[in-house]
Amino acid sequence: MAKDLAAKQRKVHFEPDNVDIVVEEGANLRETAIQAGVPIIASCGGIGSCGTCKVSIKNGEVVTTRTARVSDEEFEQGVRQACQSRVVTDLTVYLPPESRLETSILSREKKVTAGVAVTGWRFKPPLTKFFVELPPPTLEDNISDLSRLLRGLKQQYHLRNMTVDFGVVEKLSQILRDSDWKVTVMTLVTALESQAAESKRRPMVINVQPGDTREKHYSLAFDIGTTAVRGQLLDLTRGRVIAESIEYNRQISYGADVITRIAYAQKQDGLKKLQQAVVANINSIISQLLSQRHVEIENIGHLMVAGNTTMIQILLGLDPKYIRLSPYTPAATYIPPVKASSLGITVAEYVYLFAFPSVASYVGGDIVSGVVASGMHQIKKLTCYIDIGTNGQIVVGNSDWMVTAACSAGPAFEGGGVKHGMVATNGAIEEFSINPSNLEPVVGTIGGEKAKGVCGSGLINIIAALLEAGIIGQNGKFNTGLATKRIREGQDGYEYVLIRAAETQINKDIVITEVDIDNLVRAKAAIYAGCQTLVKSVGVTLQDFEQVIIAGAFGSHLDISKAITIGLLPDLPPDRFIFIGNGSLWGARLTSFSVDILDDVRRVARIMTNLELSENATFMNNYIAALFLPHTNADEFPSVAGKLASLMADKSKRRIGV
Amino acid sequence: MAKDLAAKQRKVHFEPDNVDIVVEEGANLRETAIQAGVPIIASCGGIGSCGTCKVSIKNGEVVTTRTARVSDEEFEQGVRQACQSRVVTDLTVYLPPESRLETSILSREKKVTAGVAVTGWRFKPPLTKFFVELPPPTLEDNISDLSRLLRGLKQQYHLRNMTVDFGVVEKLSQILRDSDWKVTVMTLVTALESQAAESKRRPMVINVQPGDTREKHYSLAFDIGTTAVRGQLLDLTRGRVIAESIEYNRQISYGADVITRIAYAQKQDGLKKLQQAVVANINSIISQLLSQRHVEIENIGHLMVAGNTTMIQILLGLDPKYIRLSPYTPAATYIPPVKASSLGITVAEYVYLFAFPSVASYVGGDIVSGVVASGMHQIKKLTCYIDIGTNGQIVVGNSDWMVTAACSAGPAFEGGGVKHGMVATNGAIEEFSINPSNLEPVVGTIGGEKAKGVCGSGLINIIAALLEAGIIGQNGKFNTGLATKRIREGQDGYEYVLIRAAETQINKDIVITEVDIDNLVRAKAAIYAGCQTLVKSVGVTLQDFEQVIIAGAFGSHLDISKAITIGLLPDLPPDRFIFIGNGSLWGARLTSFSVDILDDVRRVARIMTNLELSENATFMNNYIAALFLPHTNADEFPSVAGKLASLMADKSKRRIGV
Repeated sequence: MAKDLAAKQRKVHFEPDNVDIVVEEGANLRETAIQAGVPIIASCGGIGSCGTCKVSIKNGEVVTTRTARVSDEEFEQGVRQACQSRVVTDLTVYLPPESRLETSILSREKKVTAGVAVTGWRFKPPLTKFFVELPPPTLEDNISDLSRLLRGLKQQYHLRNMTVDFGVVEKLSQILRDSDWKVTVMTLVTALESQAAESKRRPMVINVQPGDTREKHYSLAFDIGTTAVRGQLLDLTRGRVIAESIEYNRQISYGADVITRIAYAQKQDGLKKLQQAVVANINSIISQLLSQRHVEIENIGHLMVAGNTTMIQILLGLDPKYIRLSPYTPAATYIPPVKASSLGITVAEYVYLFAFPSVASYVGGDIVSGVVASGMHQIKKLTCYIDIGTNGQIVVGNSDWMVTAACSAGPAFEGGGVKHGMVATNGAIEEFSINPSNLEPVVGTIGGEKAKGVCGSGLINIIAALLEAGIIGQNGKFNTGLATKRIREGQDGYEYVLIRAAETQINKDIVITEVDIDNLVRAKAAIYAGCQTLVKSVGVTLQDFEQVIIAGAFGSHLDISKAITIGLLPDLPPDRFIFIGNGSLWGARLTSFSVDILDDVRRVARIMTNLELSENATFMNNYIAALFLPHTNADEFPSVAGKLASLMADKSKRRIGV
Repeated sequence: MAKDLAAKQRKVHFEPDNVDIVVEEGANLRETAIQAGVPIIASCGGIGSCGTCKVSIKNGEVVTTRTARVSDEEFEQGVRQACQSRVVTDLTVYLPPESRLETSILSREKKVTAGVAVTGWRFKPPLTKFFVELPPPTLEDNISDLSRLLRGLKQQYHLRNMTVDFGVVEKLSQILRDSDWKVTVMTLVTALESQAAESKRRPMVINVQPGDTREKHYSLAFDIGTTAVRGQLLDLTRGRVIAESIEYNRQISYGADVITRIAYAQKQDGLKKLQQAVVANINSIISQLLSQRHVEIENIGHLMVAGNTTMIQILLGLDPKYIRLSPYTPAATYIPPVKASSLGITVAEYVYLFAFPSVASYVGGDIVSGVVASGMHQIKKLTCYIDIGTNGQIVVGNSDWMVTAACSAGPAFEGGGVKHGMVATNGAIEEFSINPSNLEPVVGTIGGEKAKGVCGSGLINIIAALLEAGIIGQNGKFNTGLATKRIREGQDGYEYVLIRAAETQINKDIVITEVDIDNLVRAKAAIYAGCQTLVKSVGVTLQDFEQVIIAGAFGSHLDISKAITIGLLPDLPPDRFIFIGNGSLWGARLTSFSVDILDDVRRVARIMTNLELSENATFMNNYIAALFLPHTNADEFPSVAGKLASLMADKSKRRIGV
């Protein structure tokens, strides 16, 4: 458009949300949706490669760059990739179910093993409130207002060596006089201080409030995940979670995984946009939490935030560029205290944000937080802590030592790179079994809705079932000689029809292809090889694990026996596996309740040794050996080998019997 | 003026500066002068009571509220108080010499006793630069950039327990890579840290610069006086002052003394204007210092600022309201670290400002600074440290203990409340003696110019001479029976003509009146009574002083024997008096050079016990007894009593001889 002409205004109407927005002609349709608050998915960050942001143009005209992601049939029906389209006229745009982010599912029930947790800590929040009544000054006792306050804290609570935020000095004189010398002092023990012996700690006076406000004593715990942002409102007087909220990470609109977002951060204002997106998440969650419990914002005194290294760097406005470039260095593992308001978070000016220390670029504070919450650092048992997602993070060790590694599994576990893959939301196929007599599937979806696609945990169940039924071989290829019409040749080679079009929400056959299986095999091989390499580096074996702690949203929905069947998890007795759910948020909460745990956090981050797997030859060998179901070395999975052998024998018997 | 009409623009031309400014009709003339940068004095802060801001209206018209400060004759000649006048038409305004601030005089030569200073300190600036060469990260060694930096500091300089400013993390990754992993790290030991044992200190990393910048290592020391602001540029590599600059405190336009300024701070935006005024001083001085030595602003790493409690609170934006109200409490004696840029000071964002701790509302960090610089806290000798100005600050003690008090002397020592009083600038009468044979004066002025008035130190010399010549009695009243025309009855009662109109710059007889003498007697009585009360509180006497340290601009021009004659200073042998000049700036400089001295500063502030003299009965009794020349109790001043007796005897003899 010529710059000297006023740009033409176009109205875009989104269905089924019934949202209108006015933009300039030429505006990108995906960005328009984001601006309008329409929950559009765009895994690849808007470069056209993933096809997850498909929309139907119901009325009006767009100009679009067509990619292979849109079939001829779709194109004729008006389906376009939003990221590849620009607004020409007024539009009516329909966002189909498979392109939507659904939040309801984020909080679905998870498997959590009871009785596993860090122990031996005192309820002693780093943020504390002290009520002091001070004698008013006289001519005989006219020390400064601040000295009077500190003297009062010393006399009444034996607090010494305090440091004071300058902001306190700015308002102190007036508050003391307005409140008749009765005030509540808020002090914070930072992570650095929590390490010092208790008598040597220097709590920081961060705020003073008139009167006795000890009953209004709250803080926030956050887990900033790549996919979702979770927040909890904590009552620090009673040591309780009093509200919880969750949202998709708004950065999803700029890319589904950390790598895409780091790439986006390199664009003009990219980092700023990503930061603003997650700050908007945090602010929205804060406002939900506060309104749920009628808590006032000025009584929120602290934020504990755990997240992976990239999420934390983006939140803090630290360019994550070098996280992505070899040799993969984060800016800082220990983040100095930072005022939350300086990041745009809408809390009072005095509130500090504590970001959990990370260990490496791909082993973040979320892992440290979860390890501490699980109490892994307190027990002698050889433990494996594992959080599986686009990246798998593995920690091996016990109370004396810990080694950690991250391995890039690719997006398969989150439904990415899979023909009918989707995030684990309503309509995703998760439960799956095969009737051995007729090779027909039995399918269950999340929420019991008609199927829309397949989520990561569903994929594992499907592949395990296909393997056990002999529909695929240990190489992941279809046994095309079987007497079932479910196996057929499709666009991407052989595929198995999981469910017929008529029974779906999307009116298409939902299938699993050899390419999909191959992607999942590579993902599971990376995780397993990571575990192998890590244990080898410290001279133990996978069989030595006395417990395996499964953390994270994906892990919480894993069927352990199926995961062992495909060779994702080591072949151990089921009672060694423990589920802890969202360890990151759990740790953030516990750390808000106890300086003891805050101290543990720094200690754990310090003792963890990171093993870099990229360009590691042992890892590569292990990985290649793991590209088989369950593994090229049958000895690694004796129970699976046995099961498969007996299934084979059964079949032979049956075949003979037939 | 009606708000809906555009205000009329008026041009005001100031002479002799030849400055023009356009203001709206109705603008206050004093504020117009301030805006135009014309150096107008206004001791009372613009309320019309002092008459120091008189100007002549040469052309045009003002509306004015006439006060008793303007005589009929002056009024007819067009003399107006600028603060009481509003612009009506275009104007030509003449600012006479006596209404001008002159800066040249601020730096005039001062008496300083050699060989007195704090000793035993190491050159070890709190702000330090460390050059580190770091190994670039590899896959085997890919710790975070910040961890790498801290590891380098530990390995190369044995630095541990560092804290880090968040701002460093924000820029670190890029600087490290741009500078090929060779950087200079700036660390700061705060006053709180300086107290800790050296091995326990936690220096703060405040900045990182690319390459080796150790040669460019500077800081600033400031003394923020009520009258003048002095700054020094310090080379921290060589431990030298490399530039110095001085300005009148721009707050003078809002009032000459702290009390007037505190009152002004209570007005709408008053505190903000006062703060901006002194920040403008600091910024102007910084720019002078930098351009003198071609130093770049980004190499200024720290600011050490000493000043009285009110000046510091105003600089920091802390309302000084309660300093003025009984029981006279400052907001804080120890000021937490504050970023200089947050106050509007034009240094780099990472630069902290350290404000010297004060002891009480009227015993400020300037006194603490001076006491430390003088080394008073290191010696066993009983010492009196005294800084005389509008307020007299007195410290009594030695290395083991210190007591301090402030007494309000009124403005007489600075020329205020005195008919022809003026600040100690060119043309002020300072030297004065009387020819006993004819009672004619011998007069010397600062700068050797024709006289404009009398400064504080001149007043002391004049009164001592008048007393010794018998022209006034010990009650401060004129001996009207003497055969001299110099004594005459004036507007304010009896007066003595110091110099005839023809020999002055102001074309008026310059006189000293009984009212002037009375004001000075009250001022000296307050100081002396303060000393007496303080020594009595600790069970010693003035005669026990082994040394008296005279600090401050006024003290540096005192003639000790004259000061004793009028009863201002205790009657001790001359060799017990030591001059240190501007102790406040000296201490600020030394503290910039050594953490040892920084530690001393906090220790000294802590051991000083303040004795509040207002409403103190002993002080009131001592004060009343001191309202005599030199004192109602002749035993307090044996040498003066003897001198006066022998002069009397001489005169009787001469009279008899005649």
